Amino acid sequence: MRNFFSAFVVSALLTAPVLAEDTPSQRTPNDIVAAAPPGDWKRIAPSDLLVMDLAPDAAGKARRVVIQLIPAPFSQGWVGNIRKLVAARWYDGIAVVRVQDNYVAQWGDPEGETPAKAKPLPKGLTVVPESEYAVGHGVPVDLTIPNDSYRTGTGIHAGWPIAFAEGKTWPTHCYGYVGVGRNNSPDTGTGAELYAVIGHAPRQLDRNVAIVGRVIAGIENLSALPRGTGDIGFYKTPEERTSIRSIRMGNEVTGLPTYEYLSTESRSFAAYVDKRANRQDDFYIHPAGGVDVCNVPVPIRAVK
Amino acid sequence: MRNFFSAFVVSALLTAPVLAEDTPSQRTPNDIVAAAPPGDWKRIAPSDLLVMDLAPDAAGKARRVVIQLIPAPFSQGWVGNIRKLVAARWYDGIAVVRVQDNYVAQWGDPEGETPAKAKPLPKGLTVVPESEYAVGHGVPVDLTIPNDSYRTGTGIHAGWPIAFAEGKTWPTHCYGYVGVGRNNSPDTGTGAELYAVIGHAPRQLDRNVAIVGRVIAGIENLSALPRGTGDIGFYKTPEERTSIRSIRMGNEVTGLPTYEYLSTESRSFAAYVDKRANRQDDFYIHPAGGVDVCNVPVPIRAVK
Repeated sequence: MRNFFSAFVVSALLTAPVLAEDTPSQRTPNDIVAAAPPGDWKRIAPSDLLVMDLAPDAAGKARRVVIQLIPAPFSQGWVGNIRKLVAARWYDGIAVVRVQDNYVAQWGDPEGETPAKAKPLPKGLTVVPESEYAVGHGVPVDLTIPNDSYRTGTGIHAGWPIAFAEGKTWPTHCYGYVGVGRNNSPDTGTGAELYAVIGHAPRQLDRNVAIVGRVIAGIENLSALPRGTGDIGFYKTPEERTSIRSIRMGNEVTGLPTYEYLSTESRSFAAYVDKRANRQDDFYIHPAGGVDVCNVPVPIRAVK
Repeated sequence: MRNFFSAFVVSALLTAPVLAEDTPSQRTPNDIVAAAPPGDWKRIAPSDLLVMDLAPDAAGKARRVVIQLIPAPFSQGWVGNIRKLVAARWYDGIAVVRVQDNYVAQWGDPEGETPAKAKPLPKGLTVVPESEYAVGHGVPVDLTIPNDSYRTGTGIHAGWPIAFAEGKTWPTHCYGYVGVGRNNSPDTGTGAELYAVIGHAPRQLDRNVAIVGRVIAGIENLSALPRGTGDIGFYKTPEERTSIRSIRMGNEVTGLPTYEYLSTESRSFAAYVDKRANRQDDFYIHPAGGVDVCNVPVPIRAVK
């Protein structure tokens, strides 16, 4: 089930159907996830989580967004910067400055583009080269999703959706995934400005912007924010922005649930993907017979 | 440019690159749309628009959603029902009852599942057969999008994204597209309960639920609503719902802008699709080289 991809393996898998499992036809993807044995779930280390607390909403309700940072071999230059920015408490007091419908919610220093007013960045941030948007050959593929519209191989590696072509592998822009805002190339961004995808997967950003994580809880605190009415969804006035009270690493926050993801090497996950592609429960008449890599979100759960 | 698809044409197009146009490499998709000559824009008849006015928001701001109904040959049984429901003013006073993150915002009669309390439907609604989810062979394809993840041909017909396989053609579930809520098959829904997609394209619904239109203005009035905290995003209490004041046909509403879509038979549209697949402006380092049918939204504009 765990394939190390090579040109040969990829071309074979791209023409093979999504892995079929012997599961009762009426089961839904959620049924399969609910029935997964405990050993199929993998704990996410709290030290790999960002806990972003926004200012409470108008009714005084707390708004927390939990982001899992992407593991090696991807985007580690930016992930390292983000850890330094959290350690320096740099994110505390910045704001969600842009919400563009069917695209992204973005947060950063509202004065970041004005050198005289910009919040000074901590020392020691890495300037990450463009070559880090993708890594080389040899990333293990737990499960391959064939027939990608973007002309690449796609699949899942250690819980993360990936694409691969021409000896390179990179993470994909799916719903809820978090990337690094930047200006035009060769600037690659520091990680001080981040965004989460809140619409259809903008896969054209793959290999052009760094994916550094994904929202695993509280995405609605970003996706349901009022859309900005300025250019590309920026808020026109400071009052429209949502303030960020703090961003902390998960291991700094007391009372955080334990988060787990469904191992993408497990039979449960393979059966889940098959059911996402081939729904046969009572609601469905025509199983799709395929699925795209961003339409098989890796199941994640919170455990008390 | 306008191909009538056949098994032969489809198989040829599926292996061909997205149509390339001779456009300056730095142009963005928006540049191409902005430069499209007036003749490339087609007027949408006001009689094919639904104008849905939600109750104003907490600040008293009006919330209008404009939906274009899908033209023949698709879903005309349900579209006919919807016209009758509007004529009977049946939708007036119902509510948005469900908002599920990364999936749908749905509106209908909150008491629709309780026969004793349900709002009576007008006479004359058609019971639409499942065979209407797809139509037969012979729908003209203005532009083909190759390499679909769902193992079908995909393309654009007269301004609408479609998929086709095995002699059948159907509209696709993309962001902002509106479908007919229903219970388990063989119920196909009347059109009294509708939803709009507010997340990544749920293409598994294609051929299983009827697409009847798309939101062409005001999607943020649905996509930014608070998410329901009940099962599959239903609101738990009536207070959480958003009331629908009225739904009218566009030709019944004074002061509505004229809406136009970019002809999908035009050279401008072909160039736009090519740029969606192959961004070469300053921000982009690696053009994707492909695109999926739901990531090339048909450009629509309001004209005074």
